[in-house]
Amino acid sequence: MEQAIAFPKRTTSAEIELGTTLQPKFGPDGLIPCITVDQATNEVLMFAFMNAESLAVTLRTGKAAYWSRSRGKLWIKGEESGHTLLVKELRVDCDQDVILLKVESVGGAACHNGYESCFYRRLAPGAGPDDPASLKLEFAARPVFDPASVYKNKK
Amino acid sequence: MEQAIAFPKRTTSAEIELGTTLQPKFGPDGLIPCITVDQATNEVLMFAFMNAESLAVTLRTGKAAYWSRSRGKLWIKGEESGHTLLVKELRVDCDQDVILLKVESVGGAACHNGYESCFYRRLAPGAGPDDPASLKLEFAARPVFDPASVYKNKK
Repeated sequence: MEQAIAFPKRTTSAEIELGTTLQPKFGPDGLIPCITVDQATNEVLMFAFMNAESLAVTLRTGKAAYWSRSRGKLWIKGEESGHTLLVKELRVDCDQDVILLKVESVGGAACHNGYESCFYRRLAPGAGPDDPASLKLEFAARPVFDPASVYKNKK
Repeated sequence: MEQAIAFPKRTTSAEIELGTTLQPKFGPDGLIPCITVDQATNEVLMFAFMNAESLAVTLRTGKAAYWSRSRGKLWIKGEESGHTLLVKELRVDCDQDVILLKVESVGGAACHNGYESCFYRRLAPGAGPDDPASLKLEFAARPVFDPASVYKNKK
């Protein structure tokens, strides 16, 4: 296991919101939300959580690393698929409890279902919010690769 | 209090990931992460959580509503500042446990600190990840408004 960076402690609200010291806030579960976007188009590619270790690994390697809540382990994106995310810029939000990565998406598909982005479906127009059955999704993108050919160890 | 929509129950992984029924997953705390981007530029404006009620309000009114964890209440964005977010498109991610809103940002500044986006700072180039003191932020944007003139009830 990589040694985690001891990130600076949280100080005042003014310093956190308008200062220049990185003071990320990890929640009670040790996690911080992370939005990942394409550096060229700003398209949101994926969303995941980081813990201090995955943030440290991301900073050291320049490759996006998250915390997999389902597997309970460090998740270096692209380890299996080859679809690594090269970090070009790291941002924080006003209260430093969210991270945003601007990346170059190697292979052009960040989603395990073969799409450029995990957000490949949108609510269909005309959905009536008071009739749940009418809340239908439509596809807003086409897959870039066939998941079966990339994740060979999965059914 | 608005009556919440009874969103469809989660079914199979295949239907959730590749189907056309909206089946949002609210966590054990009743919340789902929500990324809000500018519809024209894709710029990430803010990040917050929604509960079922705020998602229902968003769908009914077409204005972004979240759940304020700090205040423990429904948060209709712009109620105080006038900086409403008009929802043009709603997307979900592959496993439908994250929502993405594409919005028109009324007033042009979604952040309470006066910036277009809450993500107005980035990690400065040359930051050495193994030296926490070197992890400095730099401003990547200028404020659009003066918070003191908009939030008159705040110090």
